[in-house]
Amino acid sequence: MAVNAEIIAVGSEMLTPFRQDTNSLYLTERLNQLGVEVVFKTIVGDGLENIMSAARTALSRADIILVTGGLGPTEDDLTREGFAAALGREVRRDADILTALYKRFAELRRPMPENNARQADYVSGATILPNPNGTAPGQWIETEYEGATRILVLMPGPPWEMKPMFEAQCLERLRARVPVSYIATRTLKVAMMPESQCDLRIAPIYKQYADIETTILAGAGDIEIHLRARGDNEEATQERVDKLAGEIEEELDDAVYSSQGESLEQIIGYYLQMRSATVAVAESCTGGLLGARISSVAGSSRYFLGGVISYSNDLKTLFADVPPLMIQAHGAVSREVAAAMAEGIREECNATLGVAITGVAGPGGGSEEKPVGLVYHAIHDGISTEVVERKFLGDRDRVRLWATQQALDMIRRKLM
Amino acid sequence: MAVNAEIIAVGSEMLTPFRQDTNSLYLTERLNQLGVEVVFKTIVGDGLENIMSAARTALSRADIILVTGGLGPTEDDLTREGFAAALGREVRRDADILTALYKRFAELRRPMPENNARQADYVSGATILPNPNGTAPGQWIETEYEGATRILVLMPGPPWEMKPMFEAQCLERLRARVPVSYIATRTLKVAMMPESQCDLRIAPIYKQYADIETTILAGAGDIEIHLRARGDNEEATQERVDKLAGEIEEELDDAVYSSQGESLEQIIGYYLQMRSATVAVAESCTGGLLGARISSVAGSSRYFLGGVISYSNDLKTLFADVPPLMIQAHGAVSREVAAAMAEGIREECNATLGVAITGVAGPGGGSEEKPVGLVYHAIHDGISTEVVERKFLGDRDRVRLWATQQALDMIRRKLM
Repeated sequence: MAVNAEIIAVGSEMLTPFRQDTNSLYLTERLNQLGVEVVFKTIVGDGLENIMSAARTALSRADIILVTGGLGPTEDDLTREGFAAALGREVRRDADILTALYKRFAELRRPMPENNARQADYVSGATILPNPNGTAPGQWIETEYEGATRILVLMPGPPWEMKPMFEAQCLERLRARVPVSYIATRTLKVAMMPESQCDLRIAPIYKQYADIETTILAGAGDIEIHLRARGDNEEATQERVDKLAGEIEEELDDAVYSSQGESLEQIIGYYLQMRSATVAVAESCTGGLLGARISSVAGSSRYFLGGVISYSNDLKTLFADVPPLMIQAHGAVSREVAAAMAEGIREECNATLGVAITGVAGPGGGSEEKPVGLVYHAIHDGISTEVVERKFLGDRDRVRLWATQQALDMIRRKLM
Repeated sequence: MAVNAEIIAVGSEMLTPFRQDTNSLYLTERLNQLGVEVVFKTIVGDGLENIMSAARTALSRADIILVTGGLGPTEDDLTREGFAAALGREVRRDADILTALYKRFAELRRPMPENNARQADYVSGATILPNPNGTAPGQWIETEYEGATRILVLMPGPPWEMKPMFEAQCLERLRARVPVSYIATRTLKVAMMPESQCDLRIAPIYKQYADIETTILAGAGDIEIHLRARGDNEEATQERVDKLAGEIEEELDDAVYSSQGESLEQIIGYYLQMRSATVAVAESCTGGLLGARISSVAGSSRYFLGGVISYSNDLKTLFADVPPLMIQAHGAVSREVAAAMAEGIREECNATLGVAITGVAGPGGGSEEKPVGLVYHAIHDGISTEVVERKFLGDRDRVRLWATQQALDMIRRKLM
């Protein structure tokens, strides 16, 4: 049977409505790469009883248990004590760690608060994992629990301490202890296709691959198709996943914009550079979000010139040369104005492509003729102008995100 | 003793590196309002054994157990079966739900796949919770488990089905069953102050309120101070929390931009409207992100005129009248160019305030003199120009976010 894991995050702040555990996403990815499945994630507050309960439950059901948080110096930090109690072991104080703690505080020319000595405590029998990025060391424990072999790792909560510790000191130790097994993955991304239509088209294909787990995640105009299979042979498993990916790509054709997980912003960046082309934007209802997305890619100054946020009608005229009479005749949210914005901004900026968005993001400002969610997108390449009208569902944020997604996809299709 | 709760999310997709359970944030907020503490969150995959394990563990340690997901029609959807088994109860099929399912499919003029009948299954003894937004009804179960009283609620996973169901059918039922207890909360927000400095100043204050839980969460130039206390008397508890909030506000003075949880974007919106003022932006390294943030607020067209994304140097000159010789002499990332951008865009757009950002977002493009993370922010009000130089740490996304935060805070301070 496959080796499985439970990830436990300790900390009352993650049981509030404001904060989530994100360490587990990173740890899941790393475990999967080793062929280890995560079967449970648990979040537990700072109380000793609760930590003991979580520890016992995990020890009874998972081969590998990765714990983050609760190793700090305060009285609330009880991960050490909770897991020691669940294992029936003592907590001991390590003289070397204690010395290092005193030294660290001496270097800062500050007396060490007594509580900080608790960070030198360890579960009896644990291997200490040094923490070059903080004061709380990690702990590696291999043990038998109710007749089963368990690996238990306690790590600090801050990601910048936990991740380097896991990379440097846990990854190889784990690899040496789990049977060789590979999880091959591929991610395809699809723009501007309804989720149900996408599934309808690809379900007959992926259902023929019962050995591959297919997960479809849909966002605003963005679908991710995650493929995942397990096998003993790295190459054969990857080949199998790639075969399914190829068949899905063939079916969805040019709706697939990315087959290695790249973002739509990155993809249009590749295309623009490949064609030595540049782009300029004129944004109304998205208020700069399209520019923000294009420029989120490092090095985008090679192809992104900038543009205007023509939120008011005056600015549409001032910066993108939209005739005031046209706005009067058709309204700022219209096919005509979108086209004029794209043409005007391309001309003004001397760009290869001009792209424009004008619409009603809501929640106010809608009418029977121009309802909330109605957006016009235009692209002009110096020869012709293409305008796409869409009616998006959802709140203001979602309409704005959809609109930028549509515009990015129009840039992509123009360059394909 | 206080009533406590465990939230369980069922679904293998939440054990992948790509997706997180977010339903629990909403449920936590609602439970807290009832005076119920969430002590555990568990995420479990679709396997029957694992769901049973999670169910037994939760039943043994939490008074209220809210479960989302795994109620769909597919063979993977085993929440019903898992919890029935943990409770030692049967799964039965409800004739009324079944009829409603057939009717729904008939209306869609499609035959109902046999699997869908599983959505008419319920744990024996459960009260059915209708789902007006989907096909899977919820289930409400009150039971004794190992001598303790337990409330167990099974709800569908999609938030747009779960939330209305919880609001309409669970909230009042729960309120009637938990002892009256209030959790009073307040959230203060602080802009552009280092977290350590903030804590240093307010720790002596909040430490005098041992009955109030104080949580400090820090983002890019944004600190949230969450205060939370429990009491029997709603008014007295809120007064106590408000008293601490008042003392913290007094200490941090004008660094606190919001005392009721409003966003910085909303706050500058209030101020601009109050003063009948308008704002225009000129953005370089942030590429439109400042405009996107300002225009994320509904109704922002009343004070946001728009502006330019002057990503290239030519556009700084074309749209914001920055003299090319100035860019040559000082570089695009300079105090002088930031000021000229703010002044130029204000003039061009005829706005009350002109705001500009120019910097090195990285990871490339840095030099010894102008390192990655160096950003100049300028604001001009027609009389004087203020320029703030900052060196931000972090990756491209973080530098850009910090820069927009600084600019928003400058708008706020100018209007205070």
